Amino acid sequence: MGHSMISTVIQFSLPAWVAELVAGWRMPLESAEDRMRLAIGLAKENVKRQTGGPFGAAVFERDSGVLVAVGVNLVVASQCSIAHAEMLALALAQANRRTFDLAAPGIPAHELVTSAEPCAMCFGALPWSGVARLVCGARSEDVERIGFEEGPKPVAWVEQLEARGISVLTDVCRDDAQRLLRRYGEAGGTIYNPGGRRRGGHLG
Amino acid sequence: MGHSMISTVIQFSLPAWVAELVAGWRMPLESAEDRMRLAIGLAKENVKRQTGGPFGAAVFERDSGVLVAVGVNLVVASQCSIAHAEMLALALAQANRRTFDLAAPGIPAHELVTSAEPCAMCFGALPWSGVARLVCGARSEDVERIGFEEGPKPVAWVEQLEARGISVLTDVCRDDAQRLLRRYGEAGGTIYNPGGRRRGGHLG
Repeated sequence: MGHSMISTVIQFSLPAWVAELVAGWRMPLESAEDRMRLAIGLAKENVKRQTGGPFGAAVFERDSGVLVAVGVNLVVASQCSIAHAEMLALALAQANRRTFDLAAPGIPAHELVTSAEPCAMCFGALPWSGVARLVCGARSEDVERIGFEEGPKPVAWVEQLEARGISVLTDVCRDDAQRLLRRYGEAGGTIYNPGGRRRGGHLG
Repeated sequence: MGHSMISTVIQFSLPAWVAELVAGWRMPLESAEDRMRLAIGLAKENVKRQTGGPFGAAVFERDSGVLVAVGVNLVVASQCSIAHAEMLALALAQANRRTFDLAAPGIPAHELVTSAEPCAMCFGALPWSGVARLVCGARSEDVERIGFEEGPKPVAWVEQLEARGISVLTDVCRDDAQRLLRRYGEAGGTIYNPGGRRRGGHLG
């Protein structure tokens, strides 16, 4: 017989450049476009600094535009398939607000701004997060065109979120977001996938 | 104008009793039923110790039954809606194996054993994780019967996983898993949900 020693602690750290980048923005960000530019800026810098995939996200107070948290893709860097930009931004926002529910009574409405439409996992995470709005840059088809997969996400994903009280805004600065993905693909940026296959597998 | 100071680090720690509980099991666990008993045991103890919801999970090497990682629901304790048992078990397994892909070349096939069928988020996380098999105890309907939601998960979720090469085994020790959920519901166990609503919202 054998006994198991198992790890019971896991930590995620955004790259050091993130805080610096964010500090360079004048807050709050009032328009959805400005908020998206921050998310795309994070995605771009993540590629440039070689700290992860071409995806960035941020959580704002929906009405005031106060920034609550950001995330970038850390799947490779943190050796964790769950570490999509959206997941990290949501987790850090909840830590900031000290609640697992960003729709808890007494706190302002929150929104998630993401440089690309969510994969199946991040889609499923949204109803539990408490965000009131989702703002998306590039479309799923833009993400898939360069080889990433979105996973088993329903075709009517926007309607399903809206049925749960989450409003969805798509195509915000889509051209910029799409350009970043295209360049990443053209430059031969790594596209990881379970099973070590070359194509497919959303880095989020 | 204002500048933002944002948090960039987040950590999840399983409760201290987890390592002790796991050390009490003779490893490896050869049958799916024994592996499920561990997952259900974790869920039970999580309720008993008041460290979280009635959900437990574990990642094993599929063929040898060697335990790689475990998880329990920590949504409330860690103030994070993402901290479902399955997500923590997957993240800790990948940390243990030092890869974001449990199907990476050169490592054995892995499986996720969970005391209850996955919610929409955990379902979406499975294809990215690299697990080759999913083993479930209680059914989604058992989970929903006590007020938790499973989220926007497709009806044909088993088929969708199998189409992606993940085999699915359901109803393993379902009676035991279901009994735990029923008792939790009868005892008035907390059932959280975004927006502070009393019912719904899967603690995972």
